[in-house]
Amino acid sequence: MTHDTPTFTLAELAERLGARLQGDGTRRVGGLATLRDAGPDQVAFLANRAYLKDLPDTRAAAVLLAPAHGEACPVDRLELDNPYLGYAELSRLFDPLVGRAPAGVHPTAVVADDVTLGANVAIGAQAMVESGVVLGDGVVIGAGSVVGADTLIGADSRLHANVTVYHGVVIGARAILHSGCVIGGDGFGFAHDGERWHKIAQLGGVVLGDDVEVGSCSSIDRGALGDTVIGDDVKIDSQVQIAHNVQVGDHSALAGCVGIAGSTRVGRHCMLGGGVGLSGHLTIADGVQVTGMSLVTNSIHAPGVYSSGTGAMDNAHWRRNAVRFKQLDDIARRLARLEKVGRRG
Amino acid sequence: MTHDTPTFTLAELAERLGARLQGDGTRRVGGLATLRDAGPDQVAFLANRAYLKDLPDTRAAAVLLAPAHGEACPVDRLELDNPYLGYAELSRLFDPLVGRAPAGVHPTAVVADDVTLGANVAIGAQAMVESGVVLGDGVVIGAGSVVGADTLIGADSRLHANVTVYHGVVIGARAILHSGCVIGGDGFGFAHDGERWHKIAQLGGVVLGDDVEVGSCSSIDRGALGDTVIGDDVKIDSQVQIAHNVQVGDHSALAGCVGIAGSTRVGRHCMLGGGVGLSGHLTIADGVQVTGMSLVTNSIHAPGVYSSGTGAMDNAHWRRNAVRFKQLDDIARRLARLEKVGRRG
Amino acid sequence: MTHDTPTFTLAELAERLGARLQGDGTRRVGGLATLRDAGPDQVAFLANRAYLKDLPDTRAAAVLLAPAHGEACPVDRLELDNPYLGYAELSRLFDPLVGRAPAGVHPTAVVADDVTLGANVAIGAQAMVESGVVLGDGVVIGAGSVVGADTLIGADSRLHANVTVYHGVVIGARAILHSGCVIGGDGFGFAHDGERWHKIAQLGGVVLGDDVEVGSCSSIDRGALGDTVIGDDVKIDSQVQIAHNVQVGDHSALAGCVGIAGSTRVGRHCMLGGGVGLSGHLTIADGVQVTGMSLVTNSIHAPGVYSSGTGAMDNAHWRRNAVRFKQLDDIARRLARLEKVGRRG
Repeated sequence: MTHDTPTFTLAELAERLGARLQGDGTRRVGGLATLRDAGPDQVAFLANRAYLKDLPDTRAAAVLLAPAHGEACPVDRLELDNPYLGYAELSRLFDPLVGRAPAGVHPTAVVADDVTLGANVAIGAQAMVESGVVLGDGVVIGAGSVVGADTLIGADSRLHANVTVYHGVVIGARAILHSGCVIGGDGFGFAHDGERWHKIAQLGGVVLGDDVEVGSCSSIDRGALGDTVIGDDVKIDSQVQIAHNVQVGDHSALAGCVGIAGSTRVGRHCMLGGGVGLSGHLTIADGVQVTGMSLVTNSIHAPGVYSSGTGAMDNAHWRRNAVRFKQLDDIARRLARLEKVGRRG
Repeated sequence: MTHDTPTFTLAELAERLGARLQGDGTRRVGGLATLRDAGPDQVAFLANRAYLKDLPDTRAAAVLLAPAHGEACPVDRLELDNPYLGYAELSRLFDPLVGRAPAGVHPTAVVADDVTLGANVAIGAQAMVESGVVLGDGVVIGAGSVVGADTLIGADSRLHANVTVYHGVVIGARAILHSGCVIGGDGFGFAHDGERWHKIAQLGGVVLGDDVEVGSCSSIDRGALGDTVIGDDVKIDSQVQIAHNVQVGDHSALAGCVGIAGSTRVGRHCMLGGGVGLSGHLTIADGVQVTGMSLVTNSIHAPGVYSSGTGAMDNAHWRRNAVRFKQLDDIARRLARLEKVGRRG
Repeated sequence: MTHDTPTFTLAELAERLGARLQGDGTRRVGGLATLRDAGPDQVAFLANRAYLKDLPDTRAAAVLLAPAHGEACPVDRLELDNPYLGYAELSRLFDPLVGRAPAGVHPTAVVADDVTLGANVAIGAQAMVESGVVLGDGVVIGAGSVVGADTLIGADSRLHANVTVYHGVVIGARAILHSGCVIGGDGFGFAHDGERWHKIAQLGGVVLGDDVEVGSCSSIDRGALGDTVIGDDVKIDSQVQIAHNVQVGDHSALAGCVGIAGSTRVGRHCMLGGGVGLSGHLTIADGVQVTGMSLVTNSIHAPGVYSSGTGAMDNAHWRRNAVRFKQLDDIARRLARLEKVGRRG
């Protein structure tokens, strides 16, 4: 099947976006591209001043931009105060994936007898939905995905192919779970007897709020006692690890390769850069941003931007400095001694 | 299906745990919770002094704790010298998952003709077990999991859903492999001809000892020549990467997002914190602990705690210091010069 | 099925490798091992001077080595200028996996009606190949793998078990994709309205060149607009995350746990060590090497080796130095002040 991208007139787009149209409302466009790449049947957008240089030469049918840049636009335009938000809306309008999943249960899917299916549920080939599961209206379960017993998935949520959700997980509405992600695996809990490890059964679950997205190959472990809780509108990128009993507040965003250790609470509207690590049992305030690959070992009590580490430099230069890092306490003490001598002198 | 959590009398629990009961042995409890959350039909535990504050107000039917805290306990109690170990045991007693997997091969599973199945093996829906595989008694293969040709899996091991084990892997008894984990993918080996890479076929395998647990989305690569070897009772968290020909000694524990490069040998009873990276071809002694996100580029010859990196601070403060890191060798030289002047002066 | 490793005479091996044989060409060998482990029916190799010590005592039938070491070899030998490259070739000759996958579509696989299959395609049990897919000659799709609609996969590419490729992805010839890897999941793109996140549909795709290998549990996200592009002969290890619209140049190699943020361009012949992180929107020149766990936040314009971070040391020592890192700017200022005093004095 070849999927035709939908087409819209500029007047239709203006109405959908709530934008002010300057140009020919009957003109029809069939795609979205950058200022540089857009052809004469596509709409482009300007949401970042860095691309202002591409505006004069664009071949787009029309450009979505802020009113302040309207004058400089050589073609028809859609003016909107927040063009980046408008771009997000446009991208969804032109998404050929929308409506692609046919409703219905594929004959090769295995669905337990007592599963509750909402209206227009789609379950893909080779999927497995275990006993006691409840799937809300419009839920899509991708090919090869497995939904464990007694799990609840809210309306219009989509599991892409080869997703795994364990038993007893609760997922809100409009979730998007990407391939390879795992929700509800055991948290890492063991008691030591001096010689061997004894497994602590992970009796809690995972609760995802509404509008949560989880990227490819990410994992969110179930709680030891009580649940791991991800708030509403939390966005989680690929290769992220969230340990047992972590709580992430509403509207927070976690970039790729983030790792959060057990029982840490991340506030609302936080942003964790790629590869950030949070130790266990911390409290991170609302509105905290942590830059990429920083390690956070203490709680953060105030909003703001936090960082650790040192940027890359050429290896020879780095070696000389890294060696000195190991002498840093010594350097500081020697400096203090000199200062004392100076003052005495 | 709704799974009833099992119930026990306090006398039964005391016997199972080897604990001393102070209270009503006929009292029946049906769950485990924290001191704060436990209701009157549940048992709680005190294994960490930080929660001692919750003891006076607990509503639990009984509390598992150390004899030293017995006096302070307002309800029935189970006294045990290592209550954390007792908690681990309790958690397993109350695990509703135990016994959940029905024995038998699901009709949609594909099992090669020459596979050897022990007693009470369960193979889930959409699973694939290739030629020559041997599954010990009580092995559970989750839905959608794939077991490659000639692989051996020991008694009572459980692969959760969507696990992948390549060909020629050996897994001991009582292993727990979580969803999305991959055992036996190719190690990263290529020879360079000055322009292009030439693949080195990875002819070794992977050997996991007894009582190994591997978390969600973790990967353990097969050896180039000879095997990657994970000892007995090694516990591996989620999102961990273990490269070809690594050896991990018995009873070691690797937290989430750890990465170990090729041919490194980790000793027994080691603990690697979240996100720790070990370079290739190192030897790490028994009893080494490495704190979270540390990079280890040299062998470690003595037990102890090791660390690298710098903790997070507010971004403006960090920027000023990180810039100075690049001048550190210069700072050290200038300090030495001043000291010399001081001595001459 | 037990797979016999193929056997070769030394003369055959010499011819295949283009090596000079010193010894009995009719001697037959049936495997490859290290100098130390090889038995009298196996061939060994010496490609690294560190193993020269094992040469005198080897029990191998023959050794592949550089002419310079020929004299020291106690057994038959195959001389080649680049023995490591020869080892790569030998490893592939002795790979029992070659030819293991039977051609044909397994009866449990689901293949859409309009899929185009080349000659000798093999599709494993429980796999799903969606509408519009084109598979070149000799393609192998492993058990449980899912190939999304309209994806193209070039000749002789192999997807191992439980791989997921989304819709609209283009994969070149001779690709090797390991289990658990995900190609074409959504990039991490959201617009913020001041309170909530709005998803940006990821309308681009992923293009992999020829001879690309992707390790277990790695993820390569699709582009927002335009494609994520991986060049020819790029080798990607396990647990790697490549974000939307990244470009990686031909012949580059990315070790385990690397993370590359959105729109960054990595040059040709680059090597990124394990756990390296690259920020978004950077340009990395051809021939750049970055050592393990370094963070790169600025573009790199010249070939060379780059590093960041500090090596591990014992925890007590580290604590003293890490505290001083937070005083580093202050230390530098105090030193400058002392120098000034010195000059005045």
